[in-house]
Order: sequence, then structure tokens, then C-alpha cells
Amino acid sequence: HDVRSFSPQTKRNVLLFVGDDAGFETQVYNNTVCKTPHLDALAKRSVVFKHAFTSVSSCSPSRSAILTGLPQHQNGMYGLENSVHHFVSFDGVRSLPVILKQSGIRTGIIGKKHVGPESVYQFDYSKTELDGFPIMQVGRNITLMKQFAHEFLSSTDPRPFLLYIGFHDPHRCGHTQPQYGQFCEKFGNGDPGMGKIPDWVPTTYDPGEVIVPGFVQDTPAARGDLAAQYTTISRLDQGIGLILKELELAGYTDDTLVLYTSDNGIPFPNGRTNLYDSGMAEPLLVSSPAHTERWGHESNAMASTVDLTPTVLDWFGIPYPDYTLNREAVRLTGQSLLPVLQREPSTGWDTVYASHNLHEVTMYYPMRVVRNRRYKLIHNMNNLAPFNIDQDFYISNTFQDLLNRTRSGQPTHWFKTLKDYYYRPQWELFDHQADPLETTNLAGDRRYASVLSDLKEQVLRWQNATNDPWICAPWGVLENSGLYKEKPTCMPMDNGL
Amino acid sequence: HDVRSFSPQTKRNVLLFVGDDAGFETQVYNNTVCKTPHLDALAKRSVVFKHAFTSVSSCSPSRSAILTGLPQHQNGMYGLENSVHHFVSFDGVRSLPVILKQSGIRTGIIGKKHVGPESVYQFDYSKTELDGFPIMQVGRNITLMKQFAHEFLSSTDPRPFLLYIGFHDPHRCGHTQPQYGQFCEKFGNGDPGMGKIPDWVPTTYDPGEVIVPGFVQDTPAARGDLAAQYTTISRLDQGIGLILKELELAGYTDDTLVLYTSDNGIPFPNGRTNLYDSGMAEPLLVSSPAHTERWGHESNAMASTVDLTPTVLDWFGIPYPDYTLNREAVRLTGQSLLPVLQREPSTGWDTVYASHNLHEVTMYYPMRVVRNRRYKLIHNMNNLAPFNIDQDFYISNTFQDLLNRTRSGQPTHWFKTLKDYYYRPQWELFDHQADPLETTNLAGDRRYASVLSDLKEQVLRWQNATNDPWICAPWGVLENSGLYKEKPTCMPMDNGL
Ligand SMILES: [Ca+2]
Ligand SMILES: [Ca+2]
Ligand SMILES: [Mg+2]
Ligand SMILES: [Mg+2]
Repeated sequence: HDVRSFSPQTKRNVLLFVGDDAGFETQVYNNTVCKTPHLDALAKRSVVFKHAFTSVSSCSPSRSAILTGLPQHQNGMYGLENSVHHFVSFDGVRSLPVILKQSGIRTGIIGKKHVGPESVYQFDYSKTELDGFPIMQVGRNITLMKQFAHEFLSSTDPRPFLLYIGFHDPHRCGHTQPQYGQFCEKFGNGDPGMGKIPDWVPTTYDPGEVIVPGFVQDTPAARGDLAAQYTTISRLDQGIGLILKELELAGYTDDTLVLYTSDNGIPFPNGRTNLYDSGMAEPLLVSSPAHTERWGHESNAMASTVDLTPTVLDWFGIPYPDYTLNREAVRLTGQSLLPVLQREPSTGWDTVYASHNLHEVTMYYPMRVVRNRRYKLIHNMNNLAPFNIDQDFYISNTFQDLLNRTRSGQPTHWFKTLKDYYYRPQWELFDHQADPLETTNLAGDRRYASVLSDLKEQVLRWQNATNDPWICAPWGVLENSGLYKEKPTCMPMDNGL
Repeated sequence: HDVRSFSPQTKRNVLLFVGDDAGFETQVYNNTVCKTPHLDALAKRSVVFKHAFTSVSSCSPSRSAILTGLPQHQNGMYGLENSVHHFVSFDGVRSLPVILKQSGIRTGIIGKKHVGPESVYQFDYSKTELDGFPIMQVGRNITLMKQFAHEFLSSTDPRPFLLYIGFHDPHRCGHTQPQYGQFCEKFGNGDPGMGKIPDWVPTTYDPGEVIVPGFVQDTPAARGDLAAQYTTISRLDQGIGLILKELELAGYTDDTLVLYTSDNGIPFPNGRTNLYDSGMAEPLLVSSPAHTERWGHESNAMASTVDLTPTVLDWFGIPYPDYTLNREAVRLTGQSLLPVLQREPSTGWDTVYASHNLHEVTMYYPMRVVRNRRYKLIHNMNNLAPFNIDQDFYISNTFQDLLNRTRSGQPTHWFKTLKDYYYRPQWELFDHQADPLETTNLAGDRRYASVLSDLKEQVLRWQNATNDPWICAPWGVLENSGLYKEKPTCMPMDNGL
């Protein structure tokens, strides 16, 4: 164990907040309806990233990417960790908390964990659903979360720390706990049978006043869901306030790097489980007491959730270890965000990648994405089969509304059809300058042929750099052992793809 | 720990041999070319099952089904365990070795294991690739395997035992170790650079004399592969002879149940990874010293590899435990084969089921199958996408021959086209009485409408009984929590399937 010394004194600790399916429902991102005073205050001490993206729009895979710096296809967390889905990262993965622990940093996690195996994602202090706590309590009861944070922060352990707070808000609730409302917005609100979260002052919203994103149909059903979602975003926000207060009371405000982001897109059509921008763009605040120069500024740097691990390692001055997974060398493809806190970069920071394999185990839909300032290319590898709908979203008022409107021939008020949503081309190319909602696929447009081929090459290079097992899908077989050990090769099946 | 007493004295131990990708290349199943004197001798002390089937035609999933009695979709081992594939059974699975251990039976495994996690598949004595032994040594070096068996059988531990022997023969080799030949048929044969397995007397075969199964093209390439395969079947056979000799020398021949089967179909087109009979039918010998009545007889009972766990439990008189996985009660759907050793059943034993999800992690192709004496129904759930080819088979001479013949427009001498092999209907119904090679899909034939609907209902009932997460695929979403906790329901996506 290599216990390092930390200097300057202002760079001691890290507090990382992760929302669950949270989007841009905050004034920080110009949503003037949803009340998030604590995020607003944090933003004033942060650089606000306007172009941050998740590495994968699914809960466990995304959390694995946050906690390892490796895309899901590289760390093995190909889909959800829980229940029958049952995905886990490779045993050999060197996660952020384990690297930190080995370098003398104390690590804690409170709330939703949703990654495994335990041996890879070890924390010194752990109060999560995988430690036997009800996810509702440990992830939505902000008083309990505050108390755990207090306990962690009160430790007399002199080591610097990483504290990871996994809110379960504003995740949907109708699938598993419908009695609390579509987003668990009634859970703990003091109404009969709802229990009472002492520190929470519920904020309610009029469905008529919510801001409906362009990728969601503007109907009463969707508005009702959004209003409920806002209530739980406001609860998350109050939780952030409570925990930042604990940080302050413990005397750590001035030496703690605070980050806020979310794991995946909002659980609305075209959102979570998709790699359209509606599923892939994320809020990201980075608040460093050692980098006050740009507090309150926005950055246009394109950032990814795989940048978080390098950022935290950079903060602590700890190098990423040299090792292999499945006989391939492991290299981080993200980079530290700390330089962006000092100066808006004039070059670089203009490309991010994303990768999806499954969400639920029955939802096989591998996608690979490269996104630069202007274009996005999506490679849908199982595109001949329909895109799938998860249990949680299927049963939502919003999706049922789309389904029922489609069935009955009513206007859906949606920007695409269910049929187009289910059946996608193998390649989707979008020009974000002309088409921010990604409605027009340019992959077949000859005027974009060279853009397309450049981006295809770029995504393949990245798949290669990240040891992607899907690098030959869907047309070929990867041979990388025996005769092909030194020169891995995609060999065609002649399957017409 | 509930240590039971065993009576009669003749029912003490179990020795289970599992071949790796072995088929019917033995005189026991009327192959007069491939030399297997030890299997022939074992058959004279066995009931020979003429209609045995694997639960899944893929290595790790099949071994998990053998060792748990639960189909892969119920135990969680949805695909291969090794490398990037990385599937594991649910932590809560109560495997055969663990149940036995808890009932006072000593357990050992020698050779290929290929299942995880370790905590689920614990053996007291373990010499496998997962214990750090090279799979080539521990799975093909029959002298080493004999020595380990000797060590296990020499123990002074008075407990009854289960010893599981996982041959790696006659698995292909060209993918990873081509220097030893297509099937590792040269490994240890004493030629320069090949090493020497002291106890092995290599048997070689003339490609001109091998028996080409009806589902393999009769070409020089395929014949060359089959000749190599035969050599490794003969090595496996000699290994069985060596280990049965150790059993005899240790004095256990007269109180040990001996079984021989294979995990999946042979690695040829239409074989492994398919649930056509060419991938699903398996050899099965059951030799009981307590049931000598039918030694040397054949049985027409339709048996499944999920029957092995109930058979071993029955042999030891140990009940299957009462427990749940993912909140669903676990019930074995297989049954003990011991009654069949006494008397050929006049009723029952006329239906088996099979289930496949993935082989390599990139090969998502969920299938569910019901097979009775006359009919087979296959449900291909991702049928719009092409069936995939695994790394090992792709690079084989046999597959390359098919591919090259198809490309160049030469006759393939195969009974189907690659295109039909890749692109399959969602439902395939075969009449085995008229069409043992499964060439004519009757699912669209109105004369078979009621057969089809009965079999669809039957396979669904079985999916329900085995808690299949894919029960609503590919057309619906399974809702089984919240409002649907007591009444799980498939809800349609309206995706046209
Ligand atoms: Ca999430
Ligand atoms: Ca096998
Ligand atoms: Mg989630
Ligand atoms: Mg195998």
C-alpha cells in the first residue's frame, strides 16, 4: 500500500453525487420551473459542463463506467446488475475505489450502488442496497442519507476520502412501488401511508407548467409524469443541500472536490437505454475549492462520464495502474477535467464516445457511438431486431399513452413513430448543427459519405483502443487467439450485414 | 450438516464423465469406425439412452444445467463463463455439489469446469482450469487426469463421493492451439514438439473412412476434421478406461453409479450452439451396480441433462432443497433416471425441453424448444437478426469449406444454405417421424396448426415453471412486480412480432 502525501492542502477529498435517471430539470441548465436551489448554489461554485455525456445510458453499466473509467464493454458490466439481469464487471478490473484505497484514501458509498462484484467495487464504508438496506430508504430518504454522510464525515480517520452518494431519485417508481406514485414522489411526504422524511419539504408542480423536452410527446400523460419527476428532482436537490451542509459542518468544504452528474438519460421515450442525445447528454457540475477561477462559468468542453475516474485520480495525484484484462492492456480513454476548471480549452475536448450492450438481459441492442461537436454516428448492431422497452418504462403513463394513441390512431404528438423507434437502421448519422433532435438520418446521403466513413473509422479505432468484444459485429467474427493472437482480425460471415 | 446413512451398501458413490462437444462417435451408438473400447465395455454394464438431449448446446450453460438440474435461463448461466463472455449462475443457486457437501458427500472435480461463481460450484477436491491448471493438461492429458483421480480415490475420507470428470476432448483446438491440430489430436502424441501423454496410445483414422453425419457436408475438409475428432474421442475413451481402472483398484466399482454424457452437440454446422437434434441429442450411459437387470439394454426414454442432478440426488437419497431465486420458487423439472434402470417405462419419458440464450457474449440468440417423440418446436426469439458463428467453429476447416464453397458457387454438399442457416423463422416445427434431419418447417402448414398451438402452449408452461425471464420475448414485456407481483403478465409492445 502506497500512502501518498497530499499537497496542496486544499486538494484532499472528493464528494461525488450521482442522480438516478436525472436530466436537465434544473435552473442550472435553464429549466426555470423545476426548483433546485442547492444545485443552483453548487453551480455558482462550479464549472458547469454544457456538453457532458454518459458513456452508456443504462444504470449499472453507467455506474461501472463512472467507477472504473472504462466503458461497459471494456469493464464487463454489459447490462443491469440486479435480479435476473445479473451482469458483473470482470474480476480483474481495478476500480476507482480500490485504486484509491490502495493509495491510502478512505472510500465511502451511500445510496444506490448497482454494480458488482463486491470485490471489484469495494468501499471502506458502504450503506447501499447491496448491504441489505432498502433502496427506497438508502436512496430516497434524504434524512437517512444525511445521517450516513454525517457518520462517514465524523470519522477520526485522518486519511483523505472519496464519498460517493448515489441518489435513487428521480428514478421511476411505478414499476415496483406504484403506491408511492410514478416517481415515488409521494414516498415520505407525510400523507397517510406514505411515511415521513423529516428533512424533506416536498415541492409539487402543476403538470401544466412543466417544460416538455422535444423528444417527449406533449400530452397530459407525459406532463403528469414530468411533474412527478420534478418533485423527486427537488428531493434530490434538498438531499444535496443536506449533505453539502454536513460537509461544511465537518470542515471539509474548502478541501473537497464536489461533482454532480447522472448515470443515464431520463426515463422517457428516446431517453434512457438510447444513445440519442436525449439519452446520452448529462448534467455535470465540477466544483473545486482549488480552482475558483471559473466558478459559475460554463464550459463547452465535451466531457464524458469516463472522465470522472481520471479526474479523481488527477485530484489525488494517483497514477492509473498498469494491468491487463482478458490479456489486453487496459488504458483509460477519458481524461482529467481539472485543466478545464482553470481555462476553457481552445482545442481538444470535442469528441466523446458511447457504448451500449444490454439494459435488462432480454434487451440485447449493442450500439457504438461517436459524437463530436457537429455530428453523431450510431452503429446499431442488432438493428434487424426491434429495439426493446424495459419493464419500468413500459408500464409508465408516458409510454402507455404513446402505445394507446398509436393503437387508436390518435395523434401521438411525438416526433417519431413507435415503428421507427423499434426498427432502426444499422447506421444513423445526425448533423447536430442542423438537426439537434436527431430526426434526419444522413447515413445514406451521398453528400455525407466522407463524414460517414471518417466517423466509422473513428469509432472502430476507439473500439480497438477499448478492447471491444463487439468490434466485428454484426458482420464478422473476431479471431484474436491462436494464429491471430498477434494480429486480431475481423473475418466475414457473409451474412449480408 | 445432515450426514445421512446410506443403504443398501451398494449405493455409495457417483462417477460422472462429461465429454466436451462429444457426440455419437462410438460403437455404443452404432458408429463402427471410431474406436471406443472402454465406452463399449461401460455400455455393457449400463442402460444406453438412445434419446438423450442436452438442456442447452453450449458449454458453460450446459455444465451449469448438469450441475444444478436447472436450465440455463433459470440458473443464470446465460452463456460462456470464460474470458469476455463472463456469465455466472445466480449466487443463490443450490448446486448439486453444494447440496451433496451439505449432506455429507465428498465431492471432486477433475478437468474442465467452465462454470461459476466458485461459491455456487464448490467442490472439496478441484483440479480444473479455474484452479490455475492449463486446460490442455487437466482436460486432455489422460495420464494426469488418472493421477488426480487416483489421488481423489485414495483418500481415507470415509464419506461417499461424487467425482466429476470433465474431459476437454474432443473439443476443437484450431482456434487457440492450432499447432496441435484441429482437435488437439496431436497434443501429447510423442511427435516432436507435441509432448507425450504416457498412457495414451493414439488411434488415427483415415478421413476416407469416417462416417459423415447427415447434417455435415461430405467433403474432404469435413472428413479431415472428423478424422481428427475421432482421434480425440479415442483419447477420451482411453481416459475413461484409465479412470474406471482406478475406480476398480480403489475397490469402488461395485458401489459406484457411473454416468457418461456430453455437454453439447458436436462442433460442426447445425451442431453446437444449435437446438436442432444435431446440436441437442447426446450420448448417455448410466451404469448402476445396484441395477444390473438391464445392463447392456437400450432405453427409448427421452432423457435430458437436467435429469442428472435428480438422478444423483435419488441415488444418495437426498431431497432437493426448498428455496427461491429472484423471488421465485425453484423446482426441478427433470426427474431421476434410476427407475428407467429397472424397467423400460411404458408411459411418460416422452418430452424434453431445451433453452439457449447466448454462447459467446456477442451471440445473442435466445431459443426455447419442446421435443417429443414425434415433433420438435423451436422458438427463435431474435430470429430477425442472423444466427452467429463462434470463434472456434468459424475458423475450422469445415466451416471455411462451407463459406468458400458458397462464395465461389461450388456445390457445398450441405443440406441447407448458409443464408437459411443465418436467417431463421421465429417458429420452426419439425415432424421427426417424416423428417429426422429437420429440413421442412411445418410451422406455417395449416395441417399442423393444432400441433403447433399445443406445443406453443407446452413450451410456455415450461417457461413459466422454470421462471424464464424471456417468457414474453420477443413481442412483449414481462411485468412481474408492483401491481403485477401476484399475477405476472406479458404486455405487448406492438412491435409486429
Ligand atoms: Ca439510472
Ligand atoms: Ca462443450
Ligand atoms: Mg436504473
Ligand atoms: Mg465449449
